[in-house]
Amino acid sequence: MTLLHILDLLSVFVFALVGARVAADRRLDYGGIALVAIAASVSGGTLRNLFLGLKPILITDPWVIGSVIAAVAITLSVRRVTKIGKTLLIMDTLGLAIATASGVQLAHNLNSPWYATIILGVITAVTGGLLRDVLCQVEPVLLHRETIGTSSLFGAIAFVILIEFNVDVTIATISGGVVVALVRMLSIQFDLNLPKFQQGEK
Amino acid sequence: MTLLHILDLLSVFVFALVGARVAADRRLDYGGIALVAIAASVSGGTLRNLFLGLKPILITDPWVIGSVIAAVAITLSVRRVTKIGKTLLIMDTLGLAIATASGVQLAHNLNSPWYATIILGVITAVTGGLLRDVLCQVEPVLLHRETIGTSSLFGAIAFVILIEFNVDVTIATISGGVVVALVRMLSIQFDLNLPKFQQGEK
Amino acid sequence: MTLLHILDLLSVFVFALVGARVAADRRLDYGGIALVAIAASVSGGTLRNLFLGLKPILITDPWVIGSVIAAVAITLSVRRVTKIGKTLLIMDTLGLAIATASGVQLAHNLNSPWYATIILGVITAVTGGLLRDVLCQVEPVLLHRETIGTSSLFGAIAFVILIEFNVDVTIATISGGVVVALVRMLSIQFDLNLPKFQQGEK
Repeated sequence: MTLLHILDLLSVFVFALVGARVAADRRLDYGGIALVAIAASVSGGTLRNLFLGLKPILITDPWVIGSVIAAVAITLSVRRVTKIGKTLLIMDTLGLAIATASGVQLAHNLNSPWYATIILGVITAVTGGLLRDVLCQVEPVLLHRETIGTSSLFGAIAFVILIEFNVDVTIATISGGVVVALVRMLSIQFDLNLPKFQQGEK
Repeated sequence: MTLLHILDLLSVFVFALVGARVAADRRLDYGGIALVAIAASVSGGTLRNLFLGLKPILITDPWVIGSVIAAVAITLSVRRVTKIGKTLLIMDTLGLAIATASGVQLAHNLNSPWYATIILGVITAVTGGLLRDVLCQVEPVLLHRETIGTSSLFGAIAFVILIEFNVDVTIATISGGVVVALVRMLSIQFDLNLPKFQQGEK
Repeated sequence: MTLLHILDLLSVFVFALVGARVAADRRLDYGGIALVAIAASVSGGTLRNLFLGLKPILITDPWVIGSVIAAVAITLSVRRVTKIGKTLLIMDTLGLAIATASGVQLAHNLNSPWYATIILGVITAVTGGLLRDVLCQVEPVLLHRETIGTSSLFGAIAFVILIEFNVDVTIATISGGVVVALVRMLSIQFDLNLPKFQQGEK
């Protein structure tokens, strides 16, 4: 099993956990929860693969759907959860870091130019959460209050810079992921947010 | 004309009918109705084809856009309909059965593994309705109250099992479709639904 | 630089301007504005390319992301704008004309049949605005009040007819774009709209 494969499965698992939980909170039925978990966990990697001309891992790797099923089963069985907010946030941060790392590494392996590597890393990381919120009809956190996209962008840029300095790919991948998690956690800790547009009128 | 081709055109036609009707009920203009009809009817097959590395049938087969235009024309001319609810439900069930059958058959023809065949069958069947509801800004029925996904899943699993027992592909395809329709009709008849998540608090 | 390349970059730029502005009006943060600008400006061309079996220009051409960044920077710096409504509408019309032209030309270059050329032209033109509105959670203008889809359709049909009469591709492309802009401006000027569905009951 390659690092890339492990990263993909891990990010699928944690994004499916978060997706299933958000869907459950929105009172979707079990089928809806499963579908949102699938959409939330595989759409980022799917888009990345389609953009690169590859088949999505959902239909090439049985472990992917296995990871989603495990995550949904856990969500449905662990009914009462205390402090779900914090756990979810950590999960989501973890997924974000791992997905960014898997995105930049795959793009790099396929000889994408540096700007494409950054873009593919961010797309892999943020697409699932966006689709999850659109399907659950909640305000997309990505677009409103959070530093999800920024964290992923910083991590992807860190990866590209390290590669430029001939750092080993595995080390650059892990470092990129760590940067994502750090930026995200610091922004939560100190309540940093991107500014909003201030208009003259209104 | 192959069975697969006929199935694709039939599912496009009925999904376009349902899509146009839902869009009309939401007071979209004629252009919006046509666009929702297209999105509702071709997106499942399009996603299936992109995942398999094929071009979408929308741009390879003129009969597809012809089917959509016919469906929209019928919807716009038949203005007053009684018992629309029941007719729509039957149409939708038919589309679901046909699309599942076309999805599993194409995946099987291209030597997809069994889990990919099941996933592609369900994706072909449920994507259009989901996109239709998102575009029309109504609560996606797929995620909330219905047994759409489950019926499609049962039919896709039935197909895979029959293929495993060396049943002829055409017979397995038709049987898969029949299972989808049966499960869906039984669930409607007896008002069976997937359970929702019950939380301790709230 | 080919005509196609220039058209793609121009449509990305104006659609990103419109997208960023709509997102800013919806009070998204800077990251959300940037993401909506990207989605609004590149998704049409991305879908066109994926349908044709090509990689999206977002990851093959650094000028694309450069255009988006420029558009977002302009939107964020020009804070107070008078008559934004009218300027936006002209921008959007321009983007629509250019994107339709780029869509039909690329499809034609790759020997797509005439119906696929028309469909790909319209998809290139309307997808971005639709996704923009879904992400910003506003009622999609495409589906409700506007002649966006119709204008694009007329332009794409004009291109196909001109090609049929052996008109030079560059002239046909420009003419197609002009038809889009003309139909759209006339429909706005004279407040023409597609009819809505009138139901008996309700």
